[in-house]
Amino acid sequence: MASTNQGKQDAKKRARDAARMSIRGAQSWTPQTLAEAVREGKREALAQAITWVESSLPDQQPHIEALLAELPASDQSLRIGFTGIPGAGKSTLIERFGLRAVSEGWKVAVLAVDPSSQRTGGSLLGDKTRMTELSKHPEAFVRPSAASSTLGGVSRATSEAIQLCEAAGFNLILVETVGVGQSEVAVRSMVDVFALMLIGGAGDDVQGIKRGVVEMADLLLVHKAEADRMPACRDTANAYRQALHVLPTPPSGQTADVLMLSSLTGEGHEDLWTRILNLREEWTASGWWKTQRDQQRLDAMHRHARQLLIEAHMHHKAEAWEDLERQVVEGRSSPYSAARAWVKLPTDWKR
Amino acid sequence: MASTNQGKQDAKKRARDAARMSIRGAQSWTPQTLAEAVREGKREALAQAITWVESSLPDQQPHIEALLAELPASDQSLRIGFTGIPGAGKSTLIERFGLRAVSEGWKVAVLAVDPSSQRTGGSLLGDKTRMTELSKHPEAFVRPSAASSTLGGVSRATSEAIQLCEAAGFNLILVETVGVGQSEVAVRSMVDVFALMLIGGAGDDVQGIKRGVVEMADLLLVHKAEADRMPACRDTANAYRQALHVLPTPPSGQTADVLMLSSLTGEGHEDLWTRILNLREEWTASGWWKTQRDQQRLDAMHRHARQLLIEAHMHHKAEAWEDLERQVVEGRSSPYSAARAWVKLPTDWKR
Repeated sequence: MASTNQGKQDAKKRARDAARMSIRGAQSWTPQTLAEAVREGKREALAQAITWVESSLPDQQPHIEALLAELPASDQSLRIGFTGIPGAGKSTLIERFGLRAVSEGWKVAVLAVDPSSQRTGGSLLGDKTRMTELSKHPEAFVRPSAASSTLGGVSRATSEAIQLCEAAGFNLILVETVGVGQSEVAVRSMVDVFALMLIGGAGDDVQGIKRGVVEMADLLLVHKAEADRMPACRDTANAYRQALHVLPTPPSGQTADVLMLSSLTGEGHEDLWTRILNLREEWTASGWWKTQRDQQRLDAMHRHARQLLIEAHMHHKAEAWEDLERQVVEGRSSPYSAARAWVKLPTDWKR
Repeated sequence: MASTNQGKQDAKKRARDAARMSIRGAQSWTPQTLAEAVREGKREALAQAITWVESSLPDQQPHIEALLAELPASDQSLRIGFTGIPGAGKSTLIERFGLRAVSEGWKVAVLAVDPSSQRTGGSLLGDKTRMTELSKHPEAFVRPSAASSTLGGVSRATSEAIQLCEAAGFNLILVETVGVGQSEVAVRSMVDVFALMLIGGAGDDVQGIKRGVVEMADLLLVHKAEADRMPACRDTANAYRQALHVLPTPPSGQTADVLMLSSLTGEGHEDLWTRILNLREEWTASGWWKTQRDQQRLDAMHRHARQLLIEAHMHHKAEAWEDLERQVVEGRSSPYSAARAWVKLPTDWKR
C-alpha cells in the first residue's frame, strides 16, 4: 500500500502548499474582495478561487463558505459532462465543441475530473498539451485536472468550481472525465446532460463499457466516425441503439440518442449541439430540468457533509487517532474496532 | 442526476433487503455462532458473514464488530490483486492461476471489486458465467462482485471479506478489479502484490493506461501472448520496461517486472507464480512485507472511520437533515452551508 501511501503524502504536501498559497492569497484577497473579482470575470481571481475550494484544511473552510455564499450558482447555465475510455478522443471533441459554442456567443469553461492518476498525474508516456486553441480563446477558460488524494476531494472541488465559473459569467460548462470507474457517477451528479463517448467498430468496447455507465448517459456519441471507419461505426451505433431498448426508461423519460460524429471533419457536431438544446427545451417543459438540478443540490449537500465530518473529527481528535493507530499496528486492536472507538469519542465543533 | 439517484434508491433497497436477511439470519446466527461456523470453513456461513459486512445499517454495526473481533485476519496468507481494462482477460487469467494454486494445495478465494456498474450490475450485453471450473472446486471460493451504492462501501466490504475468507482457512486471496478508475487504489490498499494486466500490441493501451496505475503495480502482465501476437506483445513489454525506468523507485525498493503470458496455452504462468513467491521471500527479508501490511491496516482504520461517522450522524440527526434538505431545494441555503450547519449540530453516539 506504500505507493498509495506515498501518493497520499504527496497529495497532503500539495494540499499544504496550496493552502499556504491561499493563506498568502488571503492577505490580499478576502472572501468578499475575491468574490467581487470573480463576479467581474477576472480570470486570475477565478483561478485563485478554484484553488481555495480545492483546499481541504479545516481552517480554510470558513473562508470557502464565505466565498461560496457570495457566489451562488446560476440557473441559466448549461452543464454538459463527457466520459469515455482513454483514446475515445474526449479532449479533441470538447475543444471543437467549445470553439463552436464560443463562436455563437457562449462563454465556455472546461473542467476535468481524473481520479486515476494519484501519484504524479498524467499519462505514462507523456501528456499532450490539451485544448491549446480553446485555452487561448478570450471567451473560454480551461482548468486542468484537480490534484487531490481522494475522488471525494476531486469531485467536491469540481462541483464548487462549476459554481465559481458560473459566477464569473461562464454559461456553458463542459466537464470531462475518464471512463470506466467511479468518476462518471460524480460527474453525472453535476451536469444537466451527460454524454458517453464510444469508439466505433472496436468490438471489445461493446463488452467493455459497463451497463451502469450506459444507463447514466443522455447521449451516446460514436466518435471518430471517419472515411473507412464509417461502416464499423454504423454497426456500433446500431448495436447500442438495440441494446438501449432493453434498458429501463431513464428518469428523464427519454431513451438516450445515439449519434455518430467526427471531430476531424466536424461531421455530426451540428447534430450534437441541436440535440442538446432540444433536450434543454423538452426537459424544461416537462419539469425534469428543475427536478434533476434539485436532486443534484441535495447530492452535493450529502458530499459536503461527509467531507466536513471527517475533517472536523480529524482536527479535534488528532491525538486519540495517533494512539489508536499505534494499537492497530501493534495488533492490539483491529482497524474496525479502532475506528469505532475513535468515532465514539466526543468532539466539539469550535468554528 | 436522476439515474444515479435511482441507482442509490435501488442500492438502498438492496441494502435493506440484505439487512433483513441478516436480521433473519441473526435469529439463527449470533456473531459468535457465525464466527464459529466460518472458522470451521463452512461455505454458507462464509457467504452469510460477507453479506453481513456488506450491510451499512447502523443497527447492524455492533453485530459486524462482534463478528470481526472473533475472526482476526491471518498473517500467513498471500493476497494478490489483478487489474486491467475490460477485455484484458482478467477472469481467464485468474481462473487458470487459481486452478494451478489449488492443485498445489492452496485454498483459494476470489473476490471482485467493480464499482462501475451502479444500477443493475454486469456488462451491457450479457454477463458471462465467470470462472465456472474454479467456482466448483472444493478448495476454492468465488464471490461475485459486491453490490453497493458507493465505492467506499464496496471497498470496505471487500477488505472485510478478505479477513473473513482468511478466517475460513483460505490462504491465497485473489482480488480482481476493472482498470482505469479509483478502484485500483482501493484494491492496491488491500493486497500484498498488485498486478496490472495489459493487452500486448494494442498501441492505444500504452496511452490509455494511466501513469498512476502503472506506478502502483508490482508486476506488469502482458496478457494474450499467443502465436502471431507474440512480436506485438514483445514490443509492448519492451516499451513498458523502458517506461518503468523513468518512474521513481517504488517504496518496495523494486522496479516492477514485466512478464508475458497466455492463459490459453499456460505459457508464462509458471514464471508468474515463481515471481510472486520470490517477492514474498525478498520482501519478508527486507521488512517491506510487514511495513506494507501495517500501513494497510491504518488505511483500513481510516476508511472505517469515514464510513462510521456519516452513518452515525445520519442516524442521529435525520430530522435536521430533512429540514435542511428543504432549505436547499427552496434555494434558501446552499448545499455547502446546509452541510456545514448539519455537521455542527451535536450528536450523541448511543451504542
